[in-house]
This record gives sequence, structure tokens and C-alpha cells, in this order.
Amino acid sequence: MKHGTSTNIKHIMKIPGLVQNAAGRWVPLKVNGKTQVPFQGIGKFMPDGKKHGVNIPTCANYPSDGNKQVSTLKEALIKAGLKDGITISTHHHFRNGDLLSNQIFDIAKELNVKDLVWFPSASFPCHEHLIQYLEDGTIHHIEGSMNGPLGRFASEGKMKGTGVLRSHGGRYQAIQDGEVQIDIAVIGAACTDPFGNANGLNGSSATGLLGFALADSQFADKVIIVTDNMVPFPCLPWQIQGNFVDYTVEIEKLGDPEKIISGTTRITKSPDRLYMAELTAKFCEAAGIIKEGFSFQSGAGGTSLAVGEYFKEIMKKKGIKARFARGGSNKYLVSMLQEGLIDYLLDGQTFDLEGVRSMSENPNHVWTSPFTSYNYHSKGNFAGMVDVVILGATEIDINFNANVVTHSDGYLLHGIGGWQNCLFSKTVILPVPLFRDRIPVIVDEVTTLCGPGELIDVVVTERGIAINPQRQDLIEAVKGSGLPLKTIGELKEIAEKICGKPEKALFEDQIIAIIKWVDGTILDTVKKVKEKING
Amino acid sequence: MKHGTSTNIKHIMKIPGLVQNAAGRWVPLKVNGKTQVPFQGIGKFMPDGKKHGVNIPTCANYPSDGNKQVSTLKEALIKAGLKDGITISTHHHFRNGDLLSNQIFDIAKELNVKDLVWFPSASFPCHEHLIQYLEDGTIHHIEGSMNGPLGRFASEGKMKGTGVLRSHGGRYQAIQDGEVQIDIAVIGAACTDPFGNANGLNGSSATGLLGFALADSQFADKVIIVTDNMVPFPCLPWQIQGNFVDYTVEIEKLGDPEKIISGTTRITKSPDRLYMAELTAKFCEAAGIIKEGFSFQSGAGGTSLAVGEYFKEIMKKKGIKARFARGGSNKYLVSMLQEGLIDYLLDGQTFDLEGVRSMSENPNHVWTSPFTSYNYHSKGNFAGMVDVVILGATEIDINFNANVVTHSDGYLLHGIGGWQNCLFSKTVILPVPLFRDRIPVIVDEVTTLCGPGELIDVVVTERGIAINPQRQDLIEAVKGSGLPLKTIGELKEIAEKICGKPEKALFEDQIIAIIKWVDGTILDTVKKVKEKING
Repeated sequence: MKHGTSTNIKHIMKIPGLVQNAAGRWVPLKVNGKTQVPFQGIGKFMPDGKKHGVNIPTCANYPSDGNKQVSTLKEALIKAGLKDGITISTHHHFRNGDLLSNQIFDIAKELNVKDLVWFPSASFPCHEHLIQYLEDGTIHHIEGSMNGPLGRFASEGKMKGTGVLRSHGGRYQAIQDGEVQIDIAVIGAACTDPFGNANGLNGSSATGLLGFALADSQFADKVIIVTDNMVPFPCLPWQIQGNFVDYTVEIEKLGDPEKIISGTTRITKSPDRLYMAELTAKFCEAAGIIKEGFSFQSGAGGTSLAVGEYFKEIMKKKGIKARFARGGSNKYLVSMLQEGLIDYLLDGQTFDLEGVRSMSENPNHVWTSPFTSYNYHSKGNFAGMVDVVILGATEIDINFNANVVTHSDGYLLHGIGGWQNCLFSKTVILPVPLFRDRIPVIVDEVTTLCGPGELIDVVVTERGIAINPQRQDLIEAVKGSGLPLKTIGELKEIAEKICGKPEKALFEDQIIAIIKWVDGTILDTVKKVKEKING
Repeated sequence: MKHGTSTNIKHIMKIPGLVQNAAGRWVPLKVNGKTQVPFQGIGKFMPDGKKHGVNIPTCANYPSDGNKQVSTLKEALIKAGLKDGITISTHHHFRNGDLLSNQIFDIAKELNVKDLVWFPSASFPCHEHLIQYLEDGTIHHIEGSMNGPLGRFASEGKMKGTGVLRSHGGRYQAIQDGEVQIDIAVIGAACTDPFGNANGLNGSSATGLLGFALADSQFADKVIIVTDNMVPFPCLPWQIQGNFVDYTVEIEKLGDPEKIISGTTRITKSPDRLYMAELTAKFCEAAGIIKEGFSFQSGAGGTSLAVGEYFKEIMKKKGIKARFARGGSNKYLVSMLQEGLIDYLLDGQTFDLEGVRSMSENPNHVWTSPFTSYNYHSKGNFAGMVDVVILGATEIDINFNANVVTHSDGYLLHGIGGWQNCLFSKTVILPVPLFRDRIPVIVDEVTTLCGPGELIDVVVTERGIAINPQRQDLIEAVKGSGLPLKTIGELKEIAEKICGKPEKALFEDQIIAIIKWVDGTILDTVKKVKEKING
């Protein structure tokens, strides 16, 4: 659903320093000292600036033989100008097995550097180590998703600055547009040459691709590549181009391969979730979405993976194939590619070793980037070309608005990932359980708005399917299909009948993080969770 | 030879509007209304600006389904804003078989558009058609090499504006730095999808790669992809990324495949030139350059190709292989890659169909671009990593300065290509005949300075080899090798003994073109050729 207009903009100041945006949410006009634009509606904000122009370098200042290798990460950071108040970026290709990011801030601490902005493409529980540096002032704040402990820390109001959460595409947009200026990008790569050509394919810390670091390599002032597998020039393929790189470093170990592989990439065994997955696939079949040459994307969660398997069955039965699938790749998608059920696998993030292997060997398993797939400040991107995308949510409200970052208790525990970007595909389906731990998922109003309801087409639960009334075409298409259709309100009532009306999370006024929309405007805020009296 | 300093800068105004640059050449401070920087010596000019920031686009203004196809080239040009005085770029992947560039200006003429700047990556005799538009004011001037008839036209002082000649790397630099701002880039591609992902590999107008159009795609205001082979999304590999593209068009025929293949890509049969090639290879062997893991680049000319064949013999004899070769690829280099004599072929321009086939099929035959290989305003580039490069020249003087654009009669008949960029490799060898048509090639002073002598290490002729005295290491290395070593002065004397002292070309004051150095400064000028009385 791409063409609806948003609710009216009411820029009337009611809360000091805040303004109500087009989604009706009160958002600040200044965050971490920078002026902000409130969300103006889908496709309404028209950027009028220029892309960020980095300083023009010259080969005269780089080694003529191309060897940019220095001995230690510390040396590289010092040469790159590590000092108080700068912005340092890292990337989450190693996911919870990242051994690099913590080292950077250990070095900063050792050198008594303060007030850094950490700009990761995502952070994980393994970065809990950094809480000490958020406490002692080494790190001022995090711009990027805060999965788990760091999110909890922020939600308790303990981070000095305000967190800024962006989608993968929004991160590219922010860098490209100069909204975030990276002083030093530190890119961990499974393989590099001394010149800085790098990839994530070859070596013991292989992660598949390095797409999340692409913008950083292009737009950061200084770029450091860190590897545990230095090879002679040329390192191929060069997913990151050495011509953007200032220094290269070899360290002993970049990542813990076992933890690089995401724990979520197994098909669910829960009967309820399998049923939701089956319903989702049946819905797509009934709606005529699964047809020769179609395209799809489904996430790495257990339910999404199961949807893919049901798609596979339907495609085999019908004797059709997909033109492309977008991933998060994993062994399931790889098998579909190998069996010829998919012409091309356009991969943004490799979730298992089968994905890494396939990407190395199969030219139809293609590495993409947030630039090609998700950047909204581009001349189009891939997201809109996908026929159907299957995503998750922590909450969905009766206006189809969805939340992916906070839980119903108000804690910020997840990042946005590519979720917002994927909402631009032709049909967006969210299979969600009606409740989790006896807390309803379908609610009156989402705690945090991450995706406006006008972009969300279908909600599938174990008790029925709700289609956004804006998608009359879909409602027509599945008429008489025998699918258990409900309104979103009916789904909410069923949940509340079982679990009771959920308590609303209580917040203090302090804004601990903001949620950016894909165009750099502020969609919503996350506030400090109110401590419960008597625990 | 990379570390010498240039002659003193003498910025004393002696000729009105001109200034003497660090190479002693008088150059203008303004060209086509734009302020210029005179050459300051190798590696001396320090850029202090920012890379060109293009207008930030938004997906909101592009079709959500990714289909950017319009019906005709004319429609695309009008939609892209074709109007008086703008800069339009094209590319020479089709070389003398280009059927696209002329059509663009036919359309401009039809629409009565005036004063265009044509910014090709190179022009060829097939573009003689455009002389009428240079005459009638449709095109104001050409920024780019003018091979053959267009160069002659310019040399006769008939072009309204001043030509600006740049190397391939210099063209990337100029675009990146905002020195040239392209309003509309028209990129001919053998294969594209409606979104604009494009390559030169698949289709009847296959040219191998599209590297010369990379900068244009990234930095032009509007980008049009023209193809004769539109395929469904995704067109892979995407050498040009659709996210940069505004419009796509399908026309009947892009290029004449027979003329796409360069006529120069056959090994010379001339005994003199074969001897020069053999001497060049023997020199490299004696100097210890041909060793395990070395790298080389040789041009597409008949003599250069022969050098490659001699290299092959030596490598086989020694049982060694090269880490990489840089091309201009052709069937000879491809056979070396296939035989395992080269690990990687880093290709910037595919000169024959064997090259196109190999690039499609062999992952070790890699497409590169002027950005990776040649851009001097980068954090290093590939050129400096090449152990030895074999190039041509129209003239070389006794200070090892060389000319590649004008003939001794003063006519501008060739482009610079990657020649200037390659001068940064570790050893630069120019095999040239002592004379052509009884006109000596080794002269007192080159007609046009394209490459400063401090970057040129060895001149090989059929009568002997001259080593630049700055390269004492090379002189030492080949001592006792039995090679026919001479001074450059001795070579000049031999030529003059045979042909007589050459007449100097006579020029008028009018500057018809400037020669840019790789850093955007002006190295030299080309003047209007004086008409011979009674001639």
C-alpha cells in the first residue's frame, strides 16, 4: 500500500521543544544539538540539499606502492585522528560474534579519549562491554540499533546523549546526505589486501558481504580496514574498494564464527507459528501473488523461514519459479536457488555458512547493499520492486501501524534493520502471534511507531487474517478463498478476551532515542521507562 | 621514476593571460570561462575542496515499481532537461562503431538546442558527423580526446570553445571534483533492465565493461541508459547501478560490432617493431623486472602486444607467473590468463570479443574502472602498483618528456587515454621507432607535453635503448647485459643523421585545446596550426 496520504500535519507547539508530526507523534526539533525535521507523511519530504562531499584526497599523500598496512589497530586509530568528540562507525556483519568494536573503545579509553559518538550499523549483546564507556564518558551516545543490554541501558535513561535509530536504508541515506559525518570508519573484513580492497567471503571470519560498510567507505573522512586474513593485492571480489581506504591492519581474530551465525535462522517448530506461516503462504497463493516471475523477501525469523518453505511447496506444485528473492540469505533460500526455483538471490546479509558458500560460488547469488536495496534518497531502490515481503513486529495497532523496536513494557530491545525499507514492497504481510507471554500483540496504539499503517497490508495471526481496508484489491482477490478473514479490531478483541486488556507502559518525559523514517525525518521517540514503585 | 622534483615554478606573466607552469610551459589561467590551475609539478598540487555533491534525489520522485523506461531517446533527453548550454557526456566503449553519440546531437539540432558542451570519454572518426554541429553552434566545444577528423578540425582553429584533453583518470577526477558538472549523461549499454542496472557484457553490442561511464553515473545530474537489449530486472552484473539512473531507453542498434573491435589489436608484423618489442622484453628480463608475482601493463598497439608475447616466452622459460596484468584486454592476455601465467587480469577496456567472453566467464578476469585504476584524487590507485608498463608516444624529447596527442606537424590527432595515469607505475618503458615517415620521434623538445620526463624511465628504439639518468638503479641492473644502451641524445643524433633535423611545426597564438595533468592542473596547450603559404 504505497499511495495513501498521511494524517494532517499539525505543527502546533503544545509540548515545549516538541512538535506533532504527520503521524500525530510528538517529536523534538533538536536532537544531540542537531536540527531535525519531523515526519511529513510517506513520500512527502522533499530533500533540497546536496549529497555529502568528502574532502578530495590525492594519491600524492598515499604510498605509491599501494601498501597502507600499519602494525596495530591502535596505530591506525591514532593516525586516523582519534580524538574527543568524533564519530566512529562499525558494522554488524559479525553480529553477536563481533570481536572488533569493543577493542576500538578499549583503545579510546586507554588513550583517555572522551565523548565519542558510536555509529554502528547495529549493536548486539556482545557489546554489553561498552556500557562502562557509556558510563564513564568515553562514549557519549550510540546512533544505531541497540539490541538487548544496550537498549535496556538507554531505556533506563542512563545514556548521556539521545540514541538515533535508523533502518539500514536510513543509515545509508543519513551518511550520503551528510546528516551523520563519520570521522573514522572501522571496517572488519574477512579478507583484505594491503591497499584496502576487501570482502567478507574468504577467511575464517567470513560473513558473506560487507554491504553495511559501503556508505562508510564512500563518505567517511578516514577509513580503516581490519582483517585477520591479509592477502596480496588484488583481494577479489572487492566489495569495499581500496581507493576509499586510508589504513589496513591485520589482527589475530575478528569474529567468533559460531556467533556470527544468527541463532534465529532456524525454521520454527511451534505449531501455532507453523500454522501462521502456512496461512501466510495460502493467502499469497489465493491473492495471486505467487505466480511465474514473482519476487519475494522474507526475514530470518523462524516464522518467516517457514513461510519460505511453504512458498517452495506451492511453487513446485504450480511448476513456477521466482525471478528473484531478496535476503537475508540462508540455507533454505540457497536450496531454492540451487533447485532453480529462484533465478537470482539478491542478498543483503548472509545469515549462515551455506549463504557464504553460495555467494562465493554462484554468480546468481548476488551481494547487494543498503544503497541498491534500501536507500530512499536515491533514484529508486530495489525494495519497491519486490512483490511480497514477510516481516515481523513486536506490536501492531488497529490502524495497522507497527512497532519493531520496543516491547509492550516500553523497553528498547531491537533495531529496525531493513524493516522500514521493506514496507515499500508491493504487498507487506506481518505474520504475528496474537499474544506473546500473555501480552497481546494487536493493540489500540503501538508503543513506538516504526511503520505507518498505510504501508502495511496484511496481518496474519494464528486466529485469522486482517487485510488493511485500503487494500480493497486484496480483499476482492481472496473472497471465497475460505481463509479465516477478520478485521484488525476483531483480532484485537480475541486477544483481549484471552489475555485481558494490556497495561500501557509508563514513561517519563526524557526522550532516550528517536526513530527516524527512511527519509531522515523523525517518526517517533522512545522515552525513559518509568520505574515501577514496589518493583 | 616517481620521486624527482619538477623544474622551478616561474609564475611571471610574460604573455598576456598566460602563466608559465612548473614544466616551463605557458598556459592560460582561464579556459572556456573557467579558472584554471597551472601544473605545479608531480604530486605538488594539493586539492583543498570537497568532492562534488549531486542533488539529493528521493524515491518519491521515481516509479515505485522501478520501471524507468521511456519510448525514445528524444523523449528521454527532453525529460532529462535538454536545453541550451548544458553539458552532455557519452562514452567510447563502442569506439569507432558508436551509433549513439551522433543521434544525441541530431536530436539536439532537431530541437534547435545550441551551445552544448560535449564531454565524451573519447571521440573517434565515426563522430566526424558532428563537425556540422560544431560549425552551426549546436555544439560549443568538446571536452575529451579528439581522434582523427575532429582533432584536425580543432587544430585548424574552427571550434568555438577550447578543447580540454584529459586522461581516463583525469576525467574521473574532473567529474568527482566538480570541475566538470555533467547535466545529462547518456550511457550506451549492451544490456540493461528497465530500472537502469546495466552492463556491457550481454547482447549484440557487447563491449565488455562500462567503466568509462562510472563517474558519469555517480555524479551527473541526470542519467540515461540506452540499450538494444532490455532484459527483465535484475540485469547482472550491474556494472552501472540503476539507483543512479533516471531513464532507460531501448533503441534498435547501439553499435557496429565489427567497428567496436579496435583495429590496433593485432601483433605487429614489422621486423623493426618486433625487434623493439624483443629488446623491451629483454631489457625487463635483464633488469630483474620479470620475476615471480610481478605485474605488467601493455597497451593495445601492435608493438605493445608483441612485448606481451615476448614476456610470455620469458615467463614460460623461467617457470614463473605474474600476480596480475592490467589491460586493455585482448586475446593474447586472455590466453595468458587461461594458461595460468597471470593470476588476475584487471581490465579497464576490452579490445576484442575474446576479452568480452573471458570477462563474462572467468572470475579472475575482473572489470575495473578509471576510479579504481587511475583516479589521482583518490586514496591511492592501481597504477602505482604495476611493476612495468609499456606505452607508446608520438614524440619524446631529450629530457624524456613525451607527447601522445599531436604529431610533429602540430595536428591534434590522438587522445591521452590512460597514458598519463600509467606513468605512475614503477617502471615506464616507451618502445618507439626512431622515426616515422622519415620524421624523427626523438626530438629536442616535444611539440606538446603530455608526460613529464621525470616519470619516463626507458626509451627503446630499433637502434638502442636509452635509460633516464634518474634511474641509476636500472642502469646498474642492466650493466653487462649486452643490451644496446645509448643516451637519449645519441638516439636523437642517429635519427637526425638519417632523416635530417626535423622542421618545427608552426603555430598561431590561438589555443585550441589544453592538456590537463592527472590532478586537474594545466600541463600544456595545443595551438592552431599555421597554414603553410603555398602549401
